[in-house]
Amino acid sequence: MSQPYRITRRVEFGDTDMAGIAHFANFFRYMEVAETDFLESRGLSVAWEQGGERFGFPRVSVSCDFTRPVRFRDELEITVTVEEVGRKSVRYRFDFAHEGNPVAVGRITAVCCRKTPDRGLESIEIPAEVREKLERP
Amino acid sequence: MSQPYRITRRVEFGDTDMAGIAHFANFFRYMEVAETDFLESRGLSVAWEQGGERFGFPRVSVSCDFTRPVRFRDELEITVTVEEVGRKSVRYRFDFAHEGNPVAVGRITAVCCRKTPDRGLESIEIPAEVREKLERP
Amino acid sequence: MSQPYRITRRVEFGDTDMAGIAHFANFFRYMEVAETDFLESRGLSVAWEQGGERFGFPRVSVSCDFTRPVRFRDELEITVTVEEVGRKSVRYRFDFAHEGNPVAVGRITAVCCRKTPDRGLESIEIPAEVREKLERP
Amino acid sequence: MSQPYRITRRVEFGDTDMAGIAHFANFFRYMEVAETDFLESRGLSVAWEQGGERFGFPRVSVSCDFTRPVRFRDELEITVTVEEVGRKSVRYRFDFAHEGNPVAVGRITAVCCRKTPDRGLESIEIPAEVREKLERP
Repeated sequence: MSQPYRITRRVEFGDTDMAGIAHFANFFRYMEVAETDFLESRGLSVAWEQGGERFGFPRVSVSCDFTRPVRFRDELEITVTVEEVGRKSVRYRFDFAHEGNPVAVGRITAVCCRKTPDRGLESIEIPAEVREKLERP
Repeated sequence: MSQPYRITRRVEFGDTDMAGIAHFANFFRYMEVAETDFLESRGLSVAWEQGGERFGFPRVSVSCDFTRPVRFRDELEITVTVEEVGRKSVRYRFDFAHEGNPVAVGRITAVCCRKTPDRGLESIEIPAEVREKLERP
Repeated sequence: MSQPYRITRRVEFGDTDMAGIAHFANFFRYMEVAETDFLESRGLSVAWEQGGERFGFPRVSVSCDFTRPVRFRDELEITVTVEEVGRKSVRYRFDFAHEGNPVAVGRITAVCCRKTPDRGLESIEIPAEVREKLERP
Repeated sequence: MSQPYRITRRVEFGDTDMAGIAHFANFFRYMEVAETDFLESRGLSVAWEQGGERFGFPRVSVSCDFTRPVRFRDELEITVTVEEVGRKSVRYRFDFAHEGNPVAVGRITAVCCRKTPDRGLESIEIPAEVREKLERP
């Protein structure tokens, strides 16, 4: 399991809904930003080109459990942990907190894919140099 | 388990991402629309007022598993099933298909809540008349 | 000026904000859907491929004036009119109404573009067959 | 006209569309964040409570002109200027740049409103203490 990687993110006005709280679907946007920043901190990306081909990490399974609502201007601390690196996939865990209190826990499983000429996606083994960066503690 | 309830939804241009497919977070927006329409078909709502108080069904747990990417203009068939009605919560299952092929399966667990005067949320037992409508086969 | 083209769209729960009304930025998503459907009704698309090249209508200027807030479940009637077809661009007007009352007026100017090999965009004259379909009354 | 106020914002993966660029509607979300931060820097907010009443600055007119597409991970510099403070409204201008190059110019006109008991909105004169903070150079 990796060292935790941490970002902060404020709840924006447009993130709220008529219940006065951050709309649940936005947590997946927050996770994505945390994932992106985490990957970048490892010299990786969620989508890249190599040798004329396009690669990426589309998500195959995502979830989020919410324990406490958050509101406009609340600053979320989001901690990313690499829970597991499989042959073709990686699973991240995201711990959301506000002022030290747990708010939500999310997970994203992403599969390494190559874009095929017909614009489809084909899952592939995570390239060794990508894996090494993901697994680094 | 309820009779399946079905809606269709087209993938919008703004729903896509640079990978050329519907961005995964949008599936939760699709689920929400299906949930809203389902509730309405039962004479219910995701947020309502009664006796001067405000009630709602905030989500406490959501997930989605993706099997196949979808693209701009694809028409999604979304089937809602009430999987379980607990004392305070309800769990929906959403089956997404495109041209008959399974695309994704999502779940939302929502908890019946009352808005407290300090703008917090307090979970409550699902009122009998709401439960009756949710459980109707 | 074209015959008006009309769609309806309901305000979704996730479209609202903590003020209890549809968040203003979502009107541009509504416009886009109306634009997409309008184009399709003319046998056109907001993005297409031809002869191995990719074309599209990215927006260069957009605006919206709001006269009345709308809320969750409100059904918006959106009327699309082609206000002007220039050499390279087209301007749409979108009239939003709710229960017959004007709600907002939006405009989108889109420029016909070709995707260049380096992934840039180059504006081009609107192809004759596209123009003919846009200008049809 | 106020001193320019500046924030930066990165284009997120979920902000992009299938054309590979930031979807135009997201620029209004970016403007809103810049507006929120600007207001906060002046000790103001886009929505507040006072004396048991709720106030806010809903937008009545918004626009954006785009000169250059931006992509995933591009860092946008957003400069907010108060262009005009009227009796009931304020107009902001937002200059977007990427690596020093102009990308877009947006405008938001917001009207000071009080929430009425029936959940409607009533425009009011901008309170003196709010005006003073908005007009400060």
